[in-house]
Amino acid sequence: MPVFTTTLELSTQGDCEIVDITERVQEEVSRTPLSNGLVTVFVPGSTGGVITLEHEPGVVGDLKEAFERLSPRELPHRHHRSWGDGNGHAHVRASLVGPSLSVPLREGRLALGTWQQIAFVDFDNRSRRRVLIVQVMGD
Amino acid sequence: MPVFTTTLELSTQGDCEIVDITERVQEEVSRTPLSNGLVTVFVPGSTGGVITLEHEPGVVGDLKEAFERLSPRELPHRHHRSWGDGNGHAHVRASLVGPSLSVPLREGRLALGTWQQIAFVDFDNRSRRRVLIVQVMGD
Amino acid sequence: MPVFTTTLELSTQGDCEIVDITERVQEEVSRTPLSNGLVTVFVPGSTGGVITLEHEPGVVGDLKEAFERLSPRELPHRHHRSWGDGNGHAHVRASLVGPSLSVPLREGRLALGTWQQIAFVDFDNRSRRRVLIVQVMGD
Repeated sequence: MPVFTTTLELSTQGDCEIVDITERVQEEVSRTPLSNGLVTVFVPGSTGGVITLEHEPGVVGDLKEAFERLSPRELPHRHHRSWGDGNGHAHVRASLVGPSLSVPLREGRLALGTWQQIAFVDFDNRSRRRVLIVQVMGD
Repeated sequence: MPVFTTTLELSTQGDCEIVDITERVQEEVSRTPLSNGLVTVFVPGSTGGVITLEHEPGVVGDLKEAFERLSPRELPHRHHRSWGDGNGHAHVRASLVGPSLSVPLREGRLALGTWQQIAFVDFDNRSRRRVLIVQVMGD
Repeated sequence: MPVFTTTLELSTQGDCEIVDITERVQEEVSRTPLSNGLVTVFVPGSTGGVITLEHEPGVVGDLKEAFERLSPRELPHRHHRSWGDGNGHAHVRASLVGPSLSVPLREGRLALGTWQQIAFVDFDNRSRRRVLIVQVMGD
């Protein structure tokens, strides 16, 4: 059975930057000969997540506020007390949001809604170079 | 490799309606010749989510209150200021819950627990007609 | 197409115990002849979840506090009023976290980050014997 696994590289600013990666994922998928199946986008790391959203500035801003409510940056995190890297909130947010997204592939296209985009969220507290995994299985 | 992709249509009331779709997903799966593999349920839209839960009125009520804590409806959402459609909270909740659920298929049945059901949650602030995607891969 | 489905048994203490199952999942995967594909870890139950995290005591403690904020144990849960089993908060947390995790498999290894582990979270309010499902599809 055909499995195609590629990577996608990003430079991010951190601090809950929400990067629309829809077109880049679709490009990776379109490089494979597959038309129908399942696309998995995965973050190999513990301070980033993958979501879908309507990627417009209003929702992006509302989501950043929600992440702050979910795990406030200024709480006294135990991770910070042990490691001193100031990103305890990033670990918590990433675990709650999750590192993986599964999207059906239909006739060569990601089966997203009209106003639905795929985004990588970098919860870390500094700029990073990120490598995401894009996997396509099907026929 | 066999991939079967079908859709499932629902009429929902919105406002965090939590609709048990377990039997309908199982019916779609049973229409395919596959016995073992992976079932993906996906919402092509940015104001709905797919979860599992013990679908009894107590848990359903508790979850609705949790969604309200997660992203209170009456917060001044930026999405609403831009678009005026009053469903900023729905976008935030849907992004946090996620549009996709993966369930193993074993000997023709969804491998759910005895008290575990699959549900679609419509976070939008109005009634909708929804089309979900059900995909089955395997052998 | 090859699909391999196995189970993994755990004894847990409940109360948000966060159990690192990375090595056990890798062992199940390594028992199959597959090298590339998708690994799904699934909880067949409504009071447990699967996450990834940097599994060190600081993040583990921070996450437990986040689960308590997400759905406080002492809230008057409707599920408890109906069933009297005192675990309404566990149902809510499990639904929000989700029962399923998808991880790409590359050259026989789970494609996790260096500091990223897979964990089962038992949200229930008592010790349990748990059976998780590990499924591998690919080639």
